[in-house]
Amino acid sequence: MLKKVLLGSLGAALVLTAGILLGHFAIQKGSTTPDWVMDVTQDVNEALIQKFIAEVDNIAIQENLRSDAGYQSINLLNQIRRCWKLYQCLYISFFSSLIFHIFFYLLKQGKYSDSQGKYSDSQGKYSDSQAPYGVIGVLVYTDPWDINDGKMSDTNETYPYSWYMPPSGVERGSFNTHYGDLLTPYLAAKDDTYRIPAKNITGIPPIPTQPIGFEDAYTLICELGGEPAPSEWQGAFNCTYNFGGPGFKPTSNFNNSDVKLDIYNREELKNSANVMGVIQGSVEPDRYVIYGNHRDSWVHGAIDPSSGTSVMLEVTRVLGRMVKQGKWRPRRSIIFGSWGAEEFGLIGSTEYTEEYYSKLSERSVAYINVDIAKPSLWCLFAFLKVKTPGSDSTSVYDNWIRYFNRTSPAYGVIPNVGFLTGAGSDYAAFIHFLGITSMDISYTYDRTKTRARIYPAYHTAYDTFDYASKFIDPGFTSHQTVARTAGNVLMRLADSLLLPFNCSDYAETLEGYLNKAMELYTDGLAAHMISIEPLQTAVRNFRSAAARLDQLIRDSNLADETPLKVRRINDQLMLLDRAFLDPVAFPDRYGFRHVIWASSKAGQPTFPGLADAYTRATSTGLDSDWKEAHRQLSILIQAIQGAAHTLGDVI
Amino acid sequence: MLKKVLLGSLGAALVLTAGILLGHFAIQKGSTTPDWVMDVTQDVNEALIQKFIAEVDNIAIQENLRSDAGYQSINLLNQIRRCWKLYQCLYISFFSSLIFHIFFYLLKQGKYSDSQGKYSDSQGKYSDSQAPYGVIGVLVYTDPWDINDGKMSDTNETYPYSWYMPPSGVERGSFNTHYGDLLTPYLAAKDDTYRIPAKNITGIPPIPTQPIGFEDAYTLICELGGEPAPSEWQGAFNCTYNFGGPGFKPTSNFNNSDVKLDIYNREELKNSANVMGVIQGSVEPDRYVIYGNHRDSWVHGAIDPSSGTSVMLEVTRVLGRMVKQGKWRPRRSIIFGSWGAEEFGLIGSTEYTEEYYSKLSERSVAYINVDIAKPSLWCLFAFLKVKTPGSDSTSVYDNWIRYFNRTSPAYGVIPNVGFLTGAGSDYAAFIHFLGITSMDISYTYDRTKTRARIYPAYHTAYDTFDYASKFIDPGFTSHQTVARTAGNVLMRLADSLLLPFNCSDYAETLEGYLNKAMELYTDGLAAHMISIEPLQTAVRNFRSAAARLDQLIRDSNLADETPLKVRRINDQLMLLDRAFLDPVAFPDRYGFRHVIWASSKAGQPTFPGLADAYTRATSTGLDSDWKEAHRQLSILIQAIQGAAHTLGDVI
Ligand SMILES: [Ca+2]
Ligand SMILES: [Ca+2]
Ligand SMILES: [Zn+2]
Ligand SMILES: [Zn+2]
Ligand SMILES: [Zn+2]
Ligand SMILES: [Zn+2]
Repeated sequence: MLKKVLLGSLGAALVLTAGILLGHFAIQKGSTTPDWVMDVTQDVNEALIQKFIAEVDNIAIQENLRSDAGYQSINLLNQIRRCWKLYQCLYISFFSSLIFHIFFYLLKQGKYSDSQGKYSDSQGKYSDSQAPYGVIGVLVYTDPWDINDGKMSDTNETYPYSWYMPPSGVERGSFNTHYGDLLTPYLAAKDDTYRIPAKNITGIPPIPTQPIGFEDAYTLICELGGEPAPSEWQGAFNCTYNFGGPGFKPTSNFNNSDVKLDIYNREELKNSANVMGVIQGSVEPDRYVIYGNHRDSWVHGAIDPSSGTSVMLEVTRVLGRMVKQGKWRPRRSIIFGSWGAEEFGLIGSTEYTEEYYSKLSERSVAYINVDIAKPSLWCLFAFLKVKTPGSDSTSVYDNWIRYFNRTSPAYGVIPNVGFLTGAGSDYAAFIHFLGITSMDISYTYDRTKTRARIYPAYHTAYDTFDYASKFIDPGFTSHQTVARTAGNVLMRLADSLLLPFNCSDYAETLEGYLNKAMELYTDGLAAHMISIEPLQTAVRNFRSAAARLDQLIRDSNLADETPLKVRRINDQLMLLDRAFLDPVAFPDRYGFRHVIWASSKAGQPTFPGLADAYTRATSTGLDSDWKEAHRQLSILIQAIQGAAHTLGDVI
Repeated sequence: MLKKVLLGSLGAALVLTAGILLGHFAIQKGSTTPDWVMDVTQDVNEALIQKFIAEVDNIAIQENLRSDAGYQSINLLNQIRRCWKLYQCLYISFFSSLIFHIFFYLLKQGKYSDSQGKYSDSQGKYSDSQAPYGVIGVLVYTDPWDINDGKMSDTNETYPYSWYMPPSGVERGSFNTHYGDLLTPYLAAKDDTYRIPAKNITGIPPIPTQPIGFEDAYTLICELGGEPAPSEWQGAFNCTYNFGGPGFKPTSNFNNSDVKLDIYNREELKNSANVMGVIQGSVEPDRYVIYGNHRDSWVHGAIDPSSGTSVMLEVTRVLGRMVKQGKWRPRRSIIFGSWGAEEFGLIGSTEYTEEYYSKLSERSVAYINVDIAKPSLWCLFAFLKVKTPGSDSTSVYDNWIRYFNRTSPAYGVIPNVGFLTGAGSDYAAFIHFLGITSMDISYTYDRTKTRARIYPAYHTAYDTFDYASKFIDPGFTSHQTVARTAGNVLMRLADSLLLPFNCSDYAETLEGYLNKAMELYTDGLAAHMISIEPLQTAVRNFRSAAARLDQLIRDSNLADETPLKVRRINDQLMLLDRAFLDPVAFPDRYGFRHVIWASSKAGQPTFPGLADAYTRATSTGLDSDWKEAHRQLSILIQAIQGAAHTLGDVI
């Protein structure tokens, strides 16, 4: 097996830390004390967590997956079924960050047909101005260099002989820049909900895009004429990749040929359902910890998403049994969500957040997403004593810090945690739209051993139970580790007296962003009479408010305090991400309201709104663009100051 | 003295009722019970409220007013001073609902000057298209018919011989359709804050407007030629009010004359400050009850706003003494705000809500506004045993119900409470922008005795201590009643174990709005294939969720429950108005996010967004306008359903 390392991403630097976990309160019980006094001061029970970990069963997960976890979830979860119409916007387009291996064939002089006549240029609908370089159609494939470590034969190198994708494998994907149902922004897509006219949809590609296998791509690419493409564009095929601008090579059989692109995309209104399950909290039922994954897939989807669903089912089985046996009831409520229509743009989860916006905003402690619950998830938490599969003693934490670490000013070398700055899975609406602290658990491989992105069969027809059980996790012990880790996190979020969030870690992130912003933007802003100093002040204020709150937590003997004081501190931690929401910061970007974690085109580890606006202003030089940069700076300052106010003195 | 009746307005139907106040919990104390158990179950103390009422002193209020309450407030409040730059947008325009008595003199053929050359038509800046009927300037006055019961001589009929306004009195006012600092929408106006270009300001009149006294108006109006204006336009002057379209009467000395309008309006950036005072809560310091009034005035402003400020100072004096003597500490925190720059568009309070948006949204229980704390405030609360001045036994409640009542399906005849659907004073940002349940206490006169709107000297130079103490409230006993009532409400909001809000009353309001909407819009919507049924369903769901919550409150023996359960119910009540916020419902209307209480042009007692969109759609017939009507309906349904979710089962 390959060595794999973990990539965990948090929606916030509010990381779970062991240091601030509080012990049980030293309240003596007397006959006249109300019953509830014991309950409200109850902390997380480590023995129950160990019990959970012991009961998670690898074979149960395997059988979940074998018997089609997705459909089972509808029966297995303690269910509430909520249905709505789904607009499946099937402009299937694959988006990859490996843009240099995407094969742009310019069809400008060519012909192409479309079963619906939809893309005919005679309509003027998809004019040259809508796509760069006059491109009127895109064929997209994944190069063996990127996903197969160069392997491209199916005689012995690829599946079923290894985990590598066979030449005919086609990786699908969705390419919308907006997420959620495109017809009903900000409104849950019920039968009677107002829908915008289809022509007003934004965020989808203006030209047709067709994914193909590398088998077909090879045939076309190696025949292309024109200048050689730059070295970063070259891949694993045994030929030089040319631009092909003027067409195929004069020596090619295809010389003077056109490529005909038959498009079978279509638009449909489809129903989809989220399946919900709930364990009601005993002490704070109005505080929610949400755990979710999607249920739909491209083709079979054994790994994406059913590995995650199999794990979720096992977590609910073990927790459900503990509840039924009367051994455990979480302090806070736990909500399980099996989302529909993720692959078409995170639709199920997004519609859910639109429908329950107020309730979820007011009460959600955190959202945990476990989509591709692939092997060897090494979690970042020191207290996670879950063992790494295939090792007798290495903890998830130790493995994580070994393969994927960073140096923190406060803690030294620690496991690295990414940020949820994009919209890659169902966490998007929770963190970007509702400002709920979110965590996405996924993994990557040890980069010294493979260049495989995610896993070779990702989003292809080869993502099957056979593939998963033979090449990804035989015996399903790694899935077991994922279930143990996710359940462990879930139980701590649900049961800890004080929420295991650390706001000083948030301050560290803001300081990192600030330093980068000052390095990149101070001079350029100053040249336009915009001072970055108030941003420094804001971050400094945030840091000292966070430090004071940490100090208050350390100094408090909560046993002598009211449960309302614990609740107050928990609310400060729970609502911290909410304070960074601004619905007018990015008015044209559906669902992006979080001014720290919003995605950015600037590609810099700093504040996204400022980065994008600054980049644009320097490129256009327009006064209005500099004004927008100033506006973004003010929005950011106000958000950070506002967040600092929520952490600071209570009044 | 005139008989006066009370007009109280709540931002919500969450009215304070005695019925749901809970008694003290019957928890026996034992030596082993933590100290805080007693504190967290403590309810409002009626004896302390009586003590407060007894200590409120009419002479103290009088002396506050005599010695310039506005400036004193800066010293007297237990202060935090927060300052910011204020953009005073001095396009002074008076807005009156008595539009038919506003004197529109068409200057189209005339000439006018402007000290800054600002309104010169040669700039094309204020073209005819910007104001209806080609009006290029407006003179505005208040007719003696409307404010003086027809009295218009200053020889014996008007001040200083009575409370009526003398002929030279000029009523000022501000006329912006947006509130808050116009240069910094959604951003607190700090020194470095981004400001929009002045030319991008919206919501101010496109033509110059000048208020004049009725003395000058008389001279002009009675000389006007043209057709007689309709009877509703006629006023108290002893002449026929003509349209004046072609100019003055041929027989007039003014014949062939123009009216020259000298404009001294100017734009300035000015500093203004809010003055804040705080009493920190003992048990729930992170819950805020806010009490505010503005400090700035047109001219002297003895009544508007200083009567309110004098009352606030007296409330703080009495409460502050109780705190210092160790007799009382509120359960929740109380914040007093003395706002700046209200008269220019509610600027001080609005900038405050922008700066502390997150903190206030998360924690505010209610906002109480007492601006013009004029005599004889009869409050709506049965438990308000405050006596009406000049009566030995009549309570504020009894007087209110006598002069201003309505019939409720649930309660029969009760005091009438208006809704805060406009932006008339500093409550606007609290209710419309933050969704904080708000209450504005003001009064109106017995309409059988006077037509005086507010009071005759309102917004004129005659609003002085002499005027107030001679004609409005000699002895200041009515001010005393206002202080007692406001303090009473404040203490109940701050101290009640369970918040004195009734969500079923909110349901009653929604049902009233629904009935009106069905009556007016069902057929027209159906003709465009839009069903109003889902709105009925949503209101029905809201009603049953509210009823279940009320039942839960009645059935609960909170003494046996955790304080976290009380907090949960309080949060449901506190956050109910928040659930009606939608930042994308009215994107072009700054600060209006509450889909139930937003102001409306339709003039119907129903849902504002739907009413306005429907009215527009029927008038234009445009497909896009019917789509907007459908969108508004969907927004409304989602908000009401979302609010119902927050009242319903906790999970
Ligand atoms: Ca939607
Ligand atoms: Ca502002
Ligand atoms: Zn997935
Ligand atoms: Zn996927
Ligand atoms: Zn006022
Ligand atoms: Zn005023």
